Amino acid sequence: MRLIGKEEVENIAIGAALLGTGGGGDPFVGKMMAFQAIEEQGPVELLDITEINDEDVIVPSAMMGAPTVLVEKIPSGDEALEAFHSLEDVLNKKIKATMPIEAGGVNSLLPVALAASTGLPIVDGDGMGRAFPELQMVTFYLNGVSTTPMVLADEKGNSAVLNMVNGEWAEKIARAATMEMGGSVMNAIYPMNGRQVKDASIYRTLTLEENIGRTIKEAKANQKNPIEEVLQLLGGFTLFSGKVIDIERQTDGGFVRGTATIEGLDQHKGDNGYLEFQNENLIVKTDHDVLCMTPDLICVLDTETALPMTTEGLRYGARVTVIGIPADEKWRTEKGVEVAGPRYFGYDYDFTPVETLHERQGE
Amino acid sequence: MRLIGKEEVENIAIGAALLGTGGGGDPFVGKMMAFQAIEEQGPVELLDITEINDEDVIVPSAMMGAPTVLVEKIPSGDEALEAFHSLEDVLNKKIKATMPIEAGGVNSLLPVALAASTGLPIVDGDGMGRAFPELQMVTFYLNGVSTTPMVLADEKGNSAVLNMVNGEWAEKIARAATMEMGGSVMNAIYPMNGRQVKDASIYRTLTLEENIGRTIKEAKANQKNPIEEVLQLLGGFTLFSGKVIDIERQTDGGFVRGTATIEGLDQHKGDNGYLEFQNENLIVKTDHDVLCMTPDLICVLDTETALPMTTEGLRYGARVTVIGIPADEKWRTEKGVEVAGPRYFGYDYDFTPVETLHERQGE
Repeated sequence: MRLIGKEEVENIAIGAALLGTGGGGDPFVGKMMAFQAIEEQGPVELLDITEINDEDVIVPSAMMGAPTVLVEKIPSGDEALEAFHSLEDVLNKKIKATMPIEAGGVNSLLPVALAASTGLPIVDGDGMGRAFPELQMVTFYLNGVSTTPMVLADEKGNSAVLNMVNGEWAEKIARAATMEMGGSVMNAIYPMNGRQVKDASIYRTLTLEENIGRTIKEAKANQKNPIEEVLQLLGGFTLFSGKVIDIERQTDGGFVRGTATIEGLDQHKGDNGYLEFQNENLIVKTDHDVLCMTPDLICVLDTETALPMTTEGLRYGARVTVIGIPADEKWRTEKGVEVAGPRYFGYDYDFTPVETLHERQGE
Repeated sequence: MRLIGKEEVENIAIGAALLGTGGGGDPFVGKMMAFQAIEEQGPVELLDITEINDEDVIVPSAMMGAPTVLVEKIPSGDEALEAFHSLEDVLNKKIKATMPIEAGGVNSLLPVALAASTGLPIVDGDGMGRAFPELQMVTFYLNGVSTTPMVLADEKGNSAVLNMVNGEWAEKIARAATMEMGGSVMNAIYPMNGRQVKDASIYRTLTLEENIGRTIKEAKANQKNPIEEVLQLLGGFTLFSGKVIDIERQTDGGFVRGTATIEGLDQHKGDNGYLEFQNENLIVKTDHDVLCMTPDLICVLDTETALPMTTEGLRYGARVTVIGIPADEKWRTEKGVEVAGPRYFGYDYDFTPVETLHERQGE
């Protein structure tokens, strides 16, 4: 157990946005939520997964909805408390800790804010090791943990407890309710006991995020190349670098879908890169080759500052470096690829690991 | 208290479809559900509202959704039980009785089936004295009873407990969830104590429905005009009679909206009647005059048999008599007209009682 204060949050916000692969919410929003809660309530206890008791009730928390909406509709924090209390009523058990469901600017830090407000610890792990657009795209789901009972709560005071026969139904009904509630809501979801958390989670995501943030900061302070340092930390690859020359983006059914076109610079001069996303970056390719595909992580960094850019933060003219990071092994299983691989999103590709694609590029 | 068996259900089905003003579900579906439950469990206790204790918990039950969908997706009964048990968990109280929320072929008889399955009595009353398309259009709502906590349950095993800040939010979220769940779901809604039921209900709706059914049957047996007999029982008026020559109908957002055109016969020869509906009949007019408007009841009867026709049962060529019946006084208050009057549905008319409109016709 260690404490998370404002300095840790500052670093986590950067790392979370990077692992958020374009989605997971604006890191500024998440940081402000966590800052405010920590200022009012003090630092938060971060629990290593190995420190949890098998019978403890742990409830992940997250915002659901299109990130473009979330930017304009900053959650108040009250809806998170409301969702948690409703779920305690339903489970008829006290919740011992919360944890993130995914990495992302908002979704790594909302649970920190919730932990501060409730006085609960936060578990150092999550259900993706990255961000994904749909509720069932979590390692909890791969391990057979039930998505529901889940609670949705909005900032107006509305809440709904869903009991669904499976994760697809939870996604469908929760998404429809989210749209009616104004495009983004707070979720308390995938309630688990400690044993399930140990079996089904990605470990130490918050610590990794903090390390990413610190690595980028320290590289800059020490005049090192921050992108190189991050790639070394994460075992990743530079996929493409250049200038954003076109962005198509539509908000539709609770998702932001689109494509960014990047004109190659330096070693990619003369080539175009195409980044396709649904809340998160799903695939990046050139006119000749696929460079990286979901569930591997595709992150867009500002070429100068190495700071991660969300899909809604992408602007015409931005100088960007697209990096690829191998996903956790849980995502590279048959079931993982079925749930969150390229074919699920309608791409006619067999999943190929980014390291294999990168090797082929080198040939 | 008296018992409701299959003979009573037979009559209630007819009267319920008539008071259902075109909506409230197919009487055949409702009758079959109630028959099956009564065959398995025996007759159901019907409680007069004056027999309820003030502190008893009473929970109305209903199907929600477009009636055209309901016809193809006959409820299994299990979802009703599921919804009821979920709500008992939420309220943390035993439910003492159920009651209909509205009159209608399905929605008067689903609570009878539920009462048979659960062994609970059913209260002789409802929240409309007719049918209406939206959740907040009930006298319970006019009296300030909260729509939620409510439970939605579908035949697949999905359920949702909603806690909403007001009835409009309940309608919005429940409607969206209903659409995703296949267009019709079972609701347990507007939980009340006995005192609230006494203050906010329309009394003796099931008994009135039974009388309507019996009156039509007996008139036929005694070679009397069944329509005249029904009008006398209900204090209603013949508005228009003729042949259906056109029907436009669209299922949209959980509602069936449309217009039927009726070519006048007999005393209406040379005139056309226009019947506009949203699940229920909302307005009927000719080229010159409005004949009856919501919240007053507009019912379409088969001219030969006097049997009520639902909006989805209307067919080209059908010989129909449209009758108008004054709504309960609760609907003719300022609040009643605001919630379910012509302007709510987008018609630019001040509500005028059917008896006034009828008098003007006679001048």
